[in-house]
Amino acid sequence: MALLVQKYGGTSVGSPERIEAVAERVSRARDNGDDVVVVVSAMSGETNRLIALAESISETPSPREMDVLVSTGEQVTIALLSMALHKRGLEARSYTGGQVGIRTDNAHTKARIQRIDEERMQGDLNAGRVVVVAGFQGVDDEGNITTLGRGGSDTTAVALAAALKADECQIYTDVDGVYTTDPRVVDQARRLDRITFEEMIEMASLGSKVLQIRAVEFAGKYNVPLRVLSSFKDGEGTLITLEDESEMEQPLVSGIAFNRDEAKLTISGVPDTPGSASRILKPVSDANIEIDMIVQNVGADNRTDFTFTVHRNDYEKAKTILDDIASNLSAREVTGDNRIAKVSIVGVGMRSHAGVASLMFESLSNEGINIQMISTSEIKISVVIAEKYLELAVRALHSAFELHEPVVEEA
Amino acid sequence: MALLVQKYGGTSVGSPERIEAVAERVSRARDNGDDVVVVVSAMSGETNRLIALAESISETPSPREMDVLVSTGEQVTIALLSMALHKRGLEARSYTGGQVGIRTDNAHTKARIQRIDEERMQGDLNAGRVVVVAGFQGVDDEGNITTLGRGGSDTTAVALAAALKADECQIYTDVDGVYTTDPRVVDQARRLDRITFEEMIEMASLGSKVLQIRAVEFAGKYNVPLRVLSSFKDGEGTLITLEDESEMEQPLVSGIAFNRDEAKLTISGVPDTPGSASRILKPVSDANIEIDMIVQNVGADNRTDFTFTVHRNDYEKAKTILDDIASNLSAREVTGDNRIAKVSIVGVGMRSHAGVASLMFESLSNEGINIQMISTSEIKISVVIAEKYLELAVRALHSAFELHEPVVEEA
Repeated sequence: MALLVQKYGGTSVGSPERIEAVAERVSRARDNGDDVVVVVSAMSGETNRLIALAESISETPSPREMDVLVSTGEQVTIALLSMALHKRGLEARSYTGGQVGIRTDNAHTKARIQRIDEERMQGDLNAGRVVVVAGFQGVDDEGNITTLGRGGSDTTAVALAAALKADECQIYTDVDGVYTTDPRVVDQARRLDRITFEEMIEMASLGSKVLQIRAVEFAGKYNVPLRVLSSFKDGEGTLITLEDESEMEQPLVSGIAFNRDEAKLTISGVPDTPGSASRILKPVSDANIEIDMIVQNVGADNRTDFTFTVHRNDYEKAKTILDDIASNLSAREVTGDNRIAKVSIVGVGMRSHAGVASLMFESLSNEGINIQMISTSEIKISVVIAEKYLELAVRALHSAFELHEPVVEEA
Repeated sequence: MALLVQKYGGTSVGSPERIEAVAERVSRARDNGDDVVVVVSAMSGETNRLIALAESISETPSPREMDVLVSTGEQVTIALLSMALHKRGLEARSYTGGQVGIRTDNAHTKARIQRIDEERMQGDLNAGRVVVVAGFQGVDDEGNITTLGRGGSDTTAVALAAALKADECQIYTDVDGVYTTDPRVVDQARRLDRITFEEMIEMASLGSKVLQIRAVEFAGKYNVPLRVLSSFKDGEGTLITLEDESEMEQPLVSGIAFNRDEAKLTISGVPDTPGSASRILKPVSDANIEIDMIVQNVGADNRTDFTFTVHRNDYEKAKTILDDIASNLSAREVTGDNRIAKVSIVGVGMRSHAGVASLMFESLSNEGINIQMISTSEIKISVVIAEKYLELAVRALHSAFELHEPVVEEA
């Protein structure tokens, strides 16, 4: 008998019929003797419908009111799922984020979970009830409704699993696991049986849309076993665990991640003095723009060029902020490009192997692809290239690192 | 400078354009220097959409989950209206029933307000903000979401006005006031400039759909001046006040109310012993069925017939309960009719005038309409008739009591 937190995304609860199917799946887990907490998203299309309503009234709706508005999407789903569970003879109770004590900071539309009062849920579980929780939302210390931003339901599920010390957090989605890369780009892409948290964080942050990075970080931090499964077909999915300590052969590279939604900005001729970097980045992050890659090169005459990437939607806003900063810092100019893509190879195996970077760069060079930026971490190498080369680059790398070959697992 | 509580129903907020029009109206009140608390319903059609979703999943959805579901309707409206107010440069904050401390009992889908914490609203008003509150909803002592039942937004508005000691509670609706009777039935029906709380309670309870009876009771109890106005055209509407003490001529009868949504049930041959009435009515009201008229006649051999009316939707349920009771009480039989209507004449003026009842009965008799039940109060006489005679009866009474003639008001 295990305690499972199951999370179902918008597509999985996209119609009354699909909500019934989710209820069936929860019911099977109860039949197995498991306790279940279910976290659900808004029915697919609902969040967009609500946003369109807001936009029909205001071009710049207040973030606080956006949260009041869009949080209704999940609230509808929890009620409907609870009804579908009741119909199957299960006791179930629905809760909004606020009702179940999900406290967040007050960064409306992008809030972060600070703590969870698990007492009420534990009481329901002890009484044999299924607990159904609205994902993606919470309340701040003053009781204002907050949302965690799109995809935040994953984070809700992991945070509940951590608070309840659940045996597994299962993320049901429309794909059946984590793949070596996007199968729509590479035919031979292969489902991974398991992947480490570190690798998953790199994969998720780089655009593998399966899981939200914050959810994986949370899961890694609190050591919550996380499994990605399909809502629509049975299967084991992909288990995301602490670094595997078995003796099995580690592949050099586990997967190829990529992201089209990036834009890069360069501020050139910045005086190379201490504090320049923070004077550039702080106003950007104060505007709640997330910064991804950062590269700085020291140039001639004590001036430096500073390049970073942001989400493409934030490009214009970041550019405006940067233009202001440039004149304050007496920098030379601000340039940018929003037709770029980022491609990364990810794998814990690359830690102990030399030559991974050179194989990567060589493969790209063989295809005539110019590398605009490079950034590395212990288990990842990322490059920025022109967007038009994205598919070509991913296919070349998938082949160069032989990702279509299954890894031989030894018992 | 006054404190106004304004309530806008579903039709008044039925589209983004109409929400903008409400924002304009609120903005004009602010321009006049008034403080405003706005209570809104769900956009028209939204509650029915949500109920249909629930019904697509379960024929008997849990009342607790129905409340979680349908309360999202008002939550959407408060967010959108706040955005529309912001656009006009007004500071505004939206609150769900729970957030603004509307505590109710736990009778899901039919909850009653028990208390209101007005502190948070008062703080916003003092800071110059418009407070936008979701009507129709609250939370019970355990934080579960409750709803007051359809039309409960009126009650929310009056309860807030009472808690905040507002100068006026304005109910904006799709009619421009309270009429002597339904203008769709009688062409010459006339808008009343003012009506007493007592009359309004009788009118509302008898089917004048303008205002919820609980709202009027609340307003009368806490002496909240209540005004019914149109959202769509300007005008003074109808003011509902304590009994008028001026010297003006009182009409005998102020209006004709009627209700098609009734059904009657008779349990015959009940032993005429103390406690019979409560043994019959308690199980019915325990099932949350509201009982309207009650008539009891003592018959022969110490047995009595007991007749009451309920909402037509509750007819089958009440019949089932009554069949149980009948055998326990060894009553003779249970009969019923759900094709009845109730027509009432209402007026504080009838207190001091004899002959009102006989004029009413004579008018109906002249039209060949049989009276099935009679019930009277100090300011009202109600009769139950076959539904098919409803329009004929209302027209006959409107004419007999000369309601098309405006009352001459003396200064």
